[in-house]
Amino acid sequence: MSLAGGLLSGDVRALARAISLAEDRDPQATALVAELQPQTGRAFLVGLTGSPGTGKSTLADALVKVIRDRQQTVGVIAVDPSSPFTGGAVLGDRIRMSRHTLDKGVFIRSMGARGHLGGLAAATREAIHLLDAYGRDVILVETVGVGQSELEISTICDTVVLVLMPESGDAVQTIKAGILEIADVFVINKVDLGGAEKTRRLIQDAMALGPRQAWRPPILMASAAKEEGIGPLWDAILGHQAFLKESGGLAARRQQRLKQEVVALVAERARDEARRVLDGDTAVGRRLRENRNGKLNPYALAEEVLGQRGPQGGS
Amino acid sequence: MSLAGGLLSGDVRALARAISLAEDRDPQATALVAELQPQTGRAFLVGLTGSPGTGKSTLADALVKVIRDRQQTVGVIAVDPSSPFTGGAVLGDRIRMSRHTLDKGVFIRSMGARGHLGGLAAATREAIHLLDAYGRDVILVETVGVGQSELEISTICDTVVLVLMPESGDAVQTIKAGILEIADVFVINKVDLGGAEKTRRLIQDAMALGPRQAWRPPILMASAAKEEGIGPLWDAILGHQAFLKESGGLAARRQQRLKQEVVALVAERARDEARRVLDGDTAVGRRLRENRNGKLNPYALAEEVLGQRGPQGGS
Repeated sequence: MSLAGGLLSGDVRALARAISLAEDRDPQATALVAELQPQTGRAFLVGLTGSPGTGKSTLADALVKVIRDRQQTVGVIAVDPSSPFTGGAVLGDRIRMSRHTLDKGVFIRSMGARGHLGGLAAATREAIHLLDAYGRDVILVETVGVGQSELEISTICDTVVLVLMPESGDAVQTIKAGILEIADVFVINKVDLGGAEKTRRLIQDAMALGPRQAWRPPILMASAAKEEGIGPLWDAILGHQAFLKESGGLAARRQQRLKQEVVALVAERARDEARRVLDGDTAVGRRLRENRNGKLNPYALAEEVLGQRGPQGGS
Repeated sequence: MSLAGGLLSGDVRALARAISLAEDRDPQATALVAELQPQTGRAFLVGLTGSPGTGKSTLADALVKVIRDRQQTVGVIAVDPSSPFTGGAVLGDRIRMSRHTLDKGVFIRSMGARGHLGGLAAATREAIHLLDAYGRDVILVETVGVGQSELEISTICDTVVLVLMPESGDAVQTIKAGILEIADVFVINKVDLGGAEKTRRLIQDAMALGPRQAWRPPILMASAAKEEGIGPLWDAILGHQAFLKESGGLAARRQQRLKQEVVALVAERARDEARRVLDGDTAVGRRLRENRNGKLNPYALAEEVLGQRGPQGGS
């Protein structure tokens, strides 16, 4: 059976293989996602983001349990951009998720950069489309909270959950960095550490200074490790989903997301073309390789590369 | 006087204005950098990276003092990609650098994303070129240690200093994530916390498992807050610079960097073009805006955008 057929018929190995192709930036993955595109658009995309150490993975694990208890299927993508060199994502944090391994309604995947500079955002988008076509009801995307240039979770998901820790200075940093604005739902995890109420007030005060929005992001408290507060958190996430649907915001978000994906695809193609021109037997490529003193002008070289590419963008 | 003239004659306001233009992704900045390009290539580019909390800013401050004591001029660029929304970089950490504000041999600048998704890497590269043309002997680039897709410090600097903390689990995470490989010099900061020796052995053991390299990254100990160990750290950095020059590695690194910069410039241009096509009165733009159910195929749209752009890449 074709990979597309396998994936649509629920073969988890076909799904895993397809995501690996996406991670490798194999053109087959792109063709596959394009083919499956009519089967997508049904999944609810939830982003989980926050600083390292806030317990995002444990929270994702606890949310998976609640989602499954409510009879929905779920796919988890844990994005770890910190390693463009070794390739694999760090597995340690994922091991605790192993209690779900026998549950066919749960699919968990870590994504690393695998040495493809700039390719992680594209690979993640493709993996989301693949899980969507595979028929997952919910897709959780977990990322670290540092704004990556291309991989802003708010441009990828319907609902963004910002995970904070009490009294860690984390909330203050988040407020200072303006990251508050991306959150549709706040959750203060590890409440048993104490000081959660102070953190809640900090966030509330900071939000009060911002512009009034139609959606007021709720602030939840949870202890993911103890599985406390997870049901209410999921309800709050569903509340935001309902708001998006009623307000028309969902369509607007998805249109914006589509535009950003198109722009990213065009940029990725341009990068590939540029590398091909520079590595190839071209005048500009030879000049770059023969240059020994680093004195070439990158802007002039870029113009030359732009002049060399075909009007249809090559390939 | 023109901005280029002002900058070359040492006018610090011209420099600051030029970097602001770069941060705003103003085409004037790009033109200026292209014009100044023949005056660049002399600065020694040192990257400082590490997890949040390892004391990178304090270390940068202490290094600035040592560099100034040795009669060299220095520019510091603190890159804070965490805030693509508010724009400004977090200023708090920079305040301690204020002791250098009256010293004309020190220029310090924080760079934030200012809402230009994907533009921070380009802006940082331009700021480096501008400081280089301005005549700085050393440029320190401080970034957080999470690998951003486009802003890998190892693709921007001559020498990368990886800042670790003792006994924080930080070294273990770094080893697991494969980030060791980007370091030319290690520094274990905050040695007074204790456990630095254990961290040193961890790194040493991990390096012993890797391939043998011509350059063995030294592991330094420092307390940036107490200004201890900073002279030896700077000597180690200069040691790596000398190695690069003797081995021919500097030319290779700079050639690789030039290639990546050209690729990034081409990709940025493609992104701008794609946005212009999609926002403009074009068939594909109208189709995107009129679409209400998110069911358009991004791959087909990307093809259409690629078909619309001119062979010279426009403007």
